Amino acid sequence: MRIDLLTVLPEIFESPLGCSIIKRARNKGLVDIHVHNLRDYTTDRHRKVDDYPFGGEAGMVMQVAPIDRAITALKAERHYDEVIFTSPDGETFDQPMANSMSMLENIIILCGHYKGVDYRVREHLITREISIGDYVLTGGELPAMVITDAIVRLIPGAIGDEQSALSDSFQDNLLAPPVYSRPADYNGWRVPDILLSGHQARIDQWRYDQAMERTRRLRPDLLDKHE
Amino acid sequence: MRIDLLTVLPEIFESPLGCSIIKRARNKGLVDIHVHNLRDYTTDRHRKVDDYPFGGEAGMVMQVAPIDRAITALKAERHYDEVIFTSPDGETFDQPMANSMSMLENIIILCGHYKGVDYRVREHLITREISIGDYVLTGGELPAMVITDAIVRLIPGAIGDEQSALSDSFQDNLLAPPVYSRPADYNGWRVPDILLSGHQARIDQWRYDQAMERTRRLRPDLLDKHE
Repeated sequence: MRIDLLTVLPEIFESPLGCSIIKRARNKGLVDIHVHNLRDYTTDRHRKVDDYPFGGEAGMVMQVAPIDRAITALKAERHYDEVIFTSPDGETFDQPMANSMSMLENIIILCGHYKGVDYRVREHLITREISIGDYVLTGGELPAMVITDAIVRLIPGAIGDEQSALSDSFQDNLLAPPVYSRPADYNGWRVPDILLSGHQARIDQWRYDQAMERTRRLRPDLLDKHE
Repeated sequence: MRIDLLTVLPEIFESPLGCSIIKRARNKGLVDIHVHNLRDYTTDRHRKVDDYPFGGEAGMVMQVAPIDRAITALKAERHYDEVIFTSPDGETFDQPMANSMSMLENIIILCGHYKGVDYRVREHLITREISIGDYVLTGGELPAMVITDAIVRLIPGAIGDEQSALSDSFQDNLLAPPVYSRPADYNGWRVPDILLSGHQARIDQWRYDQAMERTRRLRPDLLDKHE
């Protein structure tokens, strides 16, 4: 899989793309991630990517020309399944969307910044608008990292068996049950006896009951989707 | 405001906390952000922060002892309004939550990693569990960055007037209207005439109509909250 990130702030991606699971997935050749500076697609001396909005509103707007040039240049080299724009008014990102996106071949993610991007970009160049949640961030860079992380960890081989993605929250529309580790007694805070009992079948039943109870209490909306 | 981030992966925060609005807010003294490596709160030679779960499940669990030591050490120095844990089964983060959190004095954000944290941490040490959305990530570090970014940009002085947070999506429960910038005609893609008309009152009406239309079409659920 290949992910091309278009941004006015390429340096923000350095440590998140150079750590942990994403770093290992890149080193293993499971994912190829390229960060492109939109200023490299400008034609003026000041490498300007933004300008004032028409109609006299506050804020600066990312201009259509550098974005069009960047996307056109990438598309000339290969086919892209999706050209994604991260925006608070996009469709809400969730685990089923991460699952299906992890099977794509090539995607572009355009990160908005400033007051937004020229709307013509969204009308003519973007195939999918995605929001990671109902809150406003400084730019689309953190959402692009979140989408990248959620997708990359689902690529077979990216995480070890010991971190199997199958038992994660949301994969079966149940919240995960509580987990505990050593020591069994920490200053009087004790691990539930059942987990120390050695009866695997009863432990599995306890886990399922806990997952159901927690989902019913905290996220009853998920139960409608649970089979 | 002071934010203390507890993590097993401190290096992942380097570029996101060293760029853009967060960097400027830190330099201006508007927010004081400290990243703590949980391994600094271990007592063994290997600086071990995780261990196998009781009950024989897959994955590793972040142990209670280093987390308890880190939180206890911080609390000995000052009062914390919240000790937050980022988790997919927490309450869903949104703009009103960001607004109220931006007025707090001191917060701790604990980033989960591996299969999760020992549940006793959540029972005894955490005051609030927050999810940034219904998807699973490698760890709580990206969610901690998202929460930090959403909060910090709301601190007065963090963003300039020209990027006024008041006209953002969600602040009035309406999606933002489209924005356009130069050129007015890009390869035949034209800016709506109204924005070039110079009639400010009509432009403002157009913007409101567009915001209403987009919200009604894309996020009708928000209209119930709009006054």
